[in-house]
Amino acid sequence: MKKSILITGGARSGKSALAERLALSRSGRAVYIATAEARDDEMRDRIAQHRARRGAGWTDHEAPLDLVGTLDATDGDAPRLVDCLTLWLTNLMLSGADWRAAGTALAEALPRQTAPVVLVTNEVGSGIVPDNRLAREFRDAAGWLNQTIATACDEVYLSVAGCPLKVKPDDVSL
Amino acid sequence: MKKSILITGGARSGKSALAERLALSRSGRAVYIATAEARDDEMRDRIAQHRARRGAGWTDHEAPLDLVGTLDATDGDAPRLVDCLTLWLTNLMLSGADWRAAGTALAEALPRQTAPVVLVTNEVGSGIVPDNRLAREFRDAAGWLNQTIATACDEVYLSVAGCPLKVKPDDVSL
Amino acid sequence: MKKSILITGGARSGKSALAERLALSRSGRAVYIATAEARDDEMRDRIAQHRARRGAGWTDHEAPLDLVGTLDATDGDAPRLVDCLTLWLTNLMLSGADWRAAGTALAEALPRQTAPVVLVTNEVGSGIVPDNRLAREFRDAAGWLNQTIATACDEVYLSVAGCPLKVKPDDVSL
Repeated sequence: MKKSILITGGARSGKSALAERLALSRSGRAVYIATAEARDDEMRDRIAQHRARRGAGWTDHEAPLDLVGTLDATDGDAPRLVDCLTLWLTNLMLSGADWRAAGTALAEALPRQTAPVVLVTNEVGSGIVPDNRLAREFRDAAGWLNQTIATACDEVYLSVAGCPLKVKPDDVSL
Repeated sequence: MKKSILITGGARSGKSALAERLALSRSGRAVYIATAEARDDEMRDRIAQHRARRGAGWTDHEAPLDLVGTLDATDGDAPRLVDCLTLWLTNLMLSGADWRAAGTALAEALPRQTAPVVLVTNEVGSGIVPDNRLAREFRDAAGWLNQTIATACDEVYLSVAGCPLKVKPDDVSL
Repeated sequence: MKKSILITGGARSGKSALAERLALSRSGRAVYIATAEARDDEMRDRIAQHRARRGAGWTDHEAPLDLVGTLDATDGDAPRLVDCLTLWLTNLMLSGADWRAAGTALAEALPRQTAPVVLVTNEVGSGIVPDNRLAREFRDAAGWLNQTIATACDEVYLSVAGCPLKVKPDDVSL
């Protein structure tokens, strides 16, 4: 297992299950870093579902904003799973933080980690152009973040209907 | 040609044409199982276009709800093409049926088929998060169905601009 | 480098940077054919960002509508980059032109080009079905255009978080 792995895909495309399998594959235990905050019932349900599926072997942390600090603080020998970057970006934006600086700091933090990091993110830019400007800005930011973190990762997978498709390293010579 | 094949992709990504080519490839004839109901002019146009493109060699069936029964009833030696699972899910939801039970029953029905089955479905979860809760629930259900059927299929393809990308079996060792 | 290459992907998936790298790879210089018109501030910003990133080595052309004429007129020995087909389609529709005839003419123009052509397009059909009919018609047209141009191209890539995934030629035997 390589050091930093990004898993991207659409909603309910099996990203989290794939990431959990990856994170547990080395030693059967891993650290779960949730960026979600249980702000409403819909989100609380989703968090509970994820936790129930994960089962044993996990130590839980929450990092709605300070993801870099949490990664540095949990860096031991167990793999970390960050789920997910898209919610982290939402939290950063809602709190008025400098999301671009935070994304750059995350990209810089990954190479210095000793234990592996598996990061989950979302494809949000393959639908029709959204009507409202805020949604367009969000998908631009999400696309930028995905590219920035993919560049810093050793491996990138696209999850399609639960099946992993390797996109990095690629076998393309341009 | 393997037994059960799932073709997924965005709207107008060439899924149906690909599935038709696959279904006809063995013997030049196949059974077409439409889940669409011609409820309005837009849908009637689309059905007529699909039928015109398909040409000869096809026996037509309609299964807006009872897809499992239709598969079992048409199981002979000709391949079946199911087009498409996303409309089937819509029909199940609109009729108040237990779509989760129906999806599970379909996944269980595939291994017992004697003749091949090619199923078409849609990627609906790679755009921005929809504003309304119903749309979010639909894309969650569609993602769940795609994963459930992909697990039961021998092969899965993602259609991109009419080009098939194999996602199952994968060459990824996680 | 093959003659005609199509790069598709979601918004901010790294398509343009990938296409620019491809177009420059042969000789360090290339022709940039923009289909964008600077109609509002948001678009002006985006065009300026693209130009700043591209740097030296580029000759710029604008072709909001007459893309085929511009390709024929710029056909020399430097590669051309067309960015992007989705905006071109939007321009054709807004001007009341026959977009289907224009798309077919572009597909026919590609094989007669002497210098390479790299074309950028967008995936717009992998979100939830849009509420309004115009958006549905646009994504149908965009899907048709992507398939039509992909058929005429020697290579097709899907850009995922900045990583190229080859979809044509495929290694799939159906």
